[in-house]
Amino acid sequence: MHHDLLLRNVRPMGGPATDLLIRGGRFAAFGPGQEAPGVPVEDGGGALAIPGLVEAHTHLDKSLWGMGWLPHPAGPSILDKIEAERALRATGAIDPARQSARLLVQALRMGTTHIRTHVDVDDVAGLDGLQGVLATRAAYAEAMDVEIVAFPQSGILTRPGVAALMEEAMRMGAEVVGGLDPCAIDRDPKGHLDVVFGLAERFGRPVDIHLHEGGTMGAFSLELILERTRALGMKGQITVSHAFCLGDPDAALVNPLLAAMAELDVAVATTAPASRPVPALAKLRALGIRVCAGSDGVRDSWNPYGTADMLERAMLVGLRNNFRRDEEMEMALHACTHGGASVLRLDDYGLAPGHIADLVLLGAETPAEAVAAHPPRRLVVKRGRVVARKGEALVEAP
Amino acid sequence: MHHDLLLRNVRPMGGPATDLLIRGGRFAAFGPGQEAPGVPVEDGGGALAIPGLVEAHTHLDKSLWGMGWLPHPAGPSILDKIEAERALRATGAIDPARQSARLLVQALRMGTTHIRTHVDVDDVAGLDGLQGVLATRAAYAEAMDVEIVAFPQSGILTRPGVAALMEEAMRMGAEVVGGLDPCAIDRDPKGHLDVVFGLAERFGRPVDIHLHEGGTMGAFSLELILERTRALGMKGQITVSHAFCLGDPDAALVNPLLAAMAELDVAVATTAPASRPVPALAKLRALGIRVCAGSDGVRDSWNPYGTADMLERAMLVGLRNNFRRDEEMEMALHACTHGGASVLRLDDYGLAPGHIADLVLLGAETPAEAVAAHPPRRLVVKRGRVVARKGEALVEAP
Ligand SMILES: [Zn+2]
Ligand SMILES: [Zn+2]
Repeated sequence: MHHDLLLRNVRPMGGPATDLLIRGGRFAAFGPGQEAPGVPVEDGGGALAIPGLVEAHTHLDKSLWGMGWLPHPAGPSILDKIEAERALRATGAIDPARQSARLLVQALRMGTTHIRTHVDVDDVAGLDGLQGVLATRAAYAEAMDVEIVAFPQSGILTRPGVAALMEEAMRMGAEVVGGLDPCAIDRDPKGHLDVVFGLAERFGRPVDIHLHEGGTMGAFSLELILERTRALGMKGQITVSHAFCLGDPDAALVNPLLAAMAELDVAVATTAPASRPVPALAKLRALGIRVCAGSDGVRDSWNPYGTADMLERAMLVGLRNNFRRDEEMEMALHACTHGGASVLRLDDYGLAPGHIADLVLLGAETPAEAVAAHPPRRLVVKRGRVVARKGEALVEAP
Repeated sequence: MHHDLLLRNVRPMGGPATDLLIRGGRFAAFGPGQEAPGVPVEDGGGALAIPGLVEAHTHLDKSLWGMGWLPHPAGPSILDKIEAERALRATGAIDPARQSARLLVQALRMGTTHIRTHVDVDDVAGLDGLQGVLATRAAYAEAMDVEIVAFPQSGILTRPGVAALMEEAMRMGAEVVGGLDPCAIDRDPKGHLDVVFGLAERFGRPVDIHLHEGGTMGAFSLELILERTRALGMKGQITVSHAFCLGDPDAALVNPLLAAMAELDVAVATTAPASRPVPALAKLRALGIRVCAGSDGVRDSWNPYGTADMLERAMLVGLRNNFRRDEEMEMALHACTHGGASVLRLDDYGLAPGHIADLVLLGAETPAEAVAAHPPRRLVVKRGRVVARKGEALVEAP
């Protein structure tokens, strides 16, 4: 389905007010005073226009969004959280199709037009999460682009049958091979990464690995990832999510890793948590490393926070990196827009003639103000179609 | 002016739905099925009720709120920011009366009912900021309680005449004596603190000192503050704002300071910045140290962020402290409500019969959800009077 739309009086990236003509779901022409008889018209009222937001790291399958408030069930460690989640999931209360649809619609309402979601594949969930998210992706295909990472949340080697489930997930339609803390969870970094990279090679698919491990252990795991990236010729196909070890204050530990990542075009996905060391965004960007951002879990058994708002995420990225100058705050927004597009390898992304017409209108003077204030979204447009208006989604959630 | 109001079907702190009867600006009775002929009724629709939010550290006099987006003018250091601000202020563009009123109304719209504001007193601003904020305080006295700290933003000893201006500020109506980084700014910690504590003693007023200094220098300044607190018998009358040195990882440095603060009942005001070390809220509270929170500057030449939303601040406090359990998230909210009230020494604060009827209604199931989602404020009530509804203030900003 392709859509035509004439957006009048909007300011792309805070520039002068202009009109945007969309034809067949793509930007056809920019410039004031456009005429297009028969094409529906929206008056932007001078709103700031930014590209559709890119949620490059989340977990649609296990959010508790819309299920009432659940007091946080887990202890402080990552293993605590894995166990708490397995117990919750075993109750059957979390329907992955329903929950992924609810969170997708919430994200859409906040201006997100593309999502990379990690979907749990393990011995409790089996492939239920994947089936649910595949159903949601099909149901909302007109309103949201969703890319799926097969994610071994509980480990691969220490859980029976997970390697085979991961392979099946790739056959069923996951586009990216996931992984998780090769040392800390499976206690066998070589074994873990051999499965992850083995699947990537066999299916010809990219990799996105959760790496919470800090300090020298995290640096070691990252080295192993980089060695395999180089050996397998997978330049440009690897994303490391979190990469807390790159936030280590020891430059002698971090700088060689950054240099290798730049050389091998390994991307970073960040949530910019305030309570953990994080890779410095400006430093990554200065080295030419692609950086995207994500909410990670939104209101799930890992994390009670979040509203799937990628503009609020841009603010958190900015605050975490102590960004105050406009060009710095624009870098935070970049991680939530073009940076995400570069990691998801989106074609024709952004506010330019010929590109796909995904955009958000909001009441802010400049992109920096949008980051500072993350105001309500006035209009969200996906491939030329209005999918949210005045903060309310025009597609229904279950 | 005293107000009567019957709030039906609200859930104080997430408890069962009940009615709150307000008479003469105070809570008169809690309980379902209240009747009060002639008293105006608001249907809360099952909303969560929390006490009015307390903004315990901000700078009303120099916000650029409502003046259009100003690209951040300053370099990275605190001295850079002081100089950039002096230059901006010297242009005369920032009318402190107008700007403090604008930010006050924005805060009110977000549910704040009490503000402690630091007001610049220096050789550029003179007492203009104070006069402006005094005018705003008088104009909005029915809608907001404002406490004023005379704040030597540019230093005391290195700027001609500031000590005398500080004294005049206390005579004019400032309630609290401010101070700033005794080592780093004035380069004379003894001299700086002698003026600050001298004024406090002479006027019989409490002290609230900005202490950005980190590590051993910050610890030294804090020791000097604690020594004076003890020598002058000022137990319970001192607040240290920021206190980044208490976020130092060296427990041998931090723990003796915390012990002395607990003994001398010295409070901490935090903004919970993501990019700086911060005192650990749970540790402070466990020691019985009073902790409040604030936005600090909102969209001024120091800081482009912020919307004066103290529920978003509670989220930032929670994220910074890695709070995930409900009781932890309630601690973050506590800093923005009762913790602030304890620092401002508010009498009769909170949702209880007999107390002053300041409250906020919002769409959340529990206080923890209010922190996680910081949803729009449905109703803000100040001393029994509705001052904001559906996110819009009912008092006008200039
Ligand atoms: Zn994740
Ligand atoms: Zn301040």
